[in-house]
Amino acid sequence: MKVSTEIEIRFADLDAYGHVNNAVYFTFLETARVKLFREDFAEIMATGLKFLVVEANCRYLQPIGLNDLLVIDVESQNPGRSSFILNYSLHNGEGKIYAEARTVMVCFDSSRGKTVRVPEQMRLALEG
Amino acid sequence: MKVSTEIEIRFADLDAYGHVNNAVYFTFLETARVKLFREDFAEIMATGLKFLVVEANCRYLQPIGLNDLLVIDVESQNPGRSSFILNYSLHNGEGKIYAEARTVMVCFDSSRGKTVRVPEQMRLALEG
Amino acid sequence: MKVSTEIEIRFADLDAYGHVNNAVYFTFLETARVKLFREDFAEIMATGLKFLVVEANCRYLQPIGLNDLLVIDVESQNPGRSSFILNYSLHNGEGKIYAEARTVMVCFDSSRGKTVRVPEQMRLALEG
Amino acid sequence: MKVSTEIEIRFADLDAYGHVNNAVYFTFLETARVKLFREDFAEIMATGLKFLVVEANCRYLQPIGLNDLLVIDVESQNPGRSSFILNYSLHNGEGKIYAEARTVMVCFDSSRGKTVRVPEQMRLALEG
Repeated sequence: MKVSTEIEIRFADLDAYGHVNNAVYFTFLETARVKLFREDFAEIMATGLKFLVVEANCRYLQPIGLNDLLVIDVESQNPGRSSFILNYSLHNGEGKIYAEARTVMVCFDSSRGKTVRVPEQMRLALEG
Repeated sequence: MKVSTEIEIRFADLDAYGHVNNAVYFTFLETARVKLFREDFAEIMATGLKFLVVEANCRYLQPIGLNDLLVIDVESQNPGRSSFILNYSLHNGEGKIYAEARTVMVCFDSSRGKTVRVPEQMRLALEG
Repeated sequence: MKVSTEIEIRFADLDAYGHVNNAVYFTFLETARVKLFREDFAEIMATGLKFLVVEANCRYLQPIGLNDLLVIDVESQNPGRSSFILNYSLHNGEGKIYAEARTVMVCFDSSRGKTVRVPEQMRLALEG
Repeated sequence: MKVSTEIEIRFADLDAYGHVNNAVYFTFLETARVKLFREDFAEIMATGLKFLVVEANCRYLQPIGLNDLLVIDVESQNPGRSSFILNYSLHNGEGKIYAEARTVMVCFDSSRGKTVRVPEQMRLALEG
């Protein structure tokens, strides 16, 4: 799976240095991820399945300013039985890369209160 | 001046109650305001003029969820010599009003470190 | 009821102007309110009762910087049958007032999905 | 250098899942880092030197709730000529570890607009 989405930068995303704060990049990753999951995995999520981040990583290459265009490419990698990896590229749509990031995700069944295997239908979609 | 803009809701805007947190509405107002000011008052802002909120008010009518469409209408009111009022309507574009808000703004000259009169060109635009 | 609490300012609370962002003041109000409610109304909240903001107002008097001490006094006013008002003073503990704010609150019963009357025990505490 | 600080959790730090949102952990790291740097490197920072995050990583082990006590230990590692690493442990002060994190930092001279070597005095303090 490889999908792309645009994120609108808010004045509140900037910190006192005048650029997007480093923690906000992870909010951007989540915004992109949730938007895509809602489109592709709406049925699965309706069953009460949540996706939790168990590890997150970001390498900051170029600062992001208020007037910058921000596109996030999300690509899934090696979905396993109980977890999957998402790789993110944050860029301006014209070759300038702001950051590269990665989250390791697990599936959590809220009704049973525990992590569960990645549903087969989802694993296939992530592999595709 | 009466302008309109759409705001994209992020998962991070929700609080533990599952709806957009009450403080985030003010971030939405700011996002709408900054977007519109950048378009209409870019030249004025380039001179180092900032717009500060001296009073803010919001009446919450309906909760906003992650999947809701959010449009903000911003309308200026009675621009004075040293301050102006912005009225906001937060709605779904189809008649459902989420909230009504208001901010009182002043102009602040960063180079001189003090509030200044609303520039004439801006006052006229706000009146229009 | 009149209570007081200190809020620790975070670097992330500042915006690109280098002071606490105007929306974050409402997060501060909430932080103070939740802290106090957890102490005083823990039993009531354990029944599933939530407190929702239906109107919020803030007047900004002095900017707040990263190194400033911030104390919030919360005082209840005129608890009615179905709503109550909280008044807030944000100050530095030594007479410098940063802001004055107010929220109108209602009680919401999550199990029944609707607003309910202020519990008598709570109304008395708020009046005290 | 190994230092420790407590972070006060806010209701707004929770997301719709009822626990501290994964992006907010990075705000916590920043809050701890800034607090410690202000104490130890105030003179250096007064010269206009900023500390930028060029890489950040977090492993989430246990969810953090509103009522949890949160302590962050920050330990510096291998300060190099142009960068240094900070390792963080987020725990409850009684052996329960919520998360382990790491940031790679560089020094940025705002007056010259470029990254610079870690000041010798600071490198020694970080090594200590």
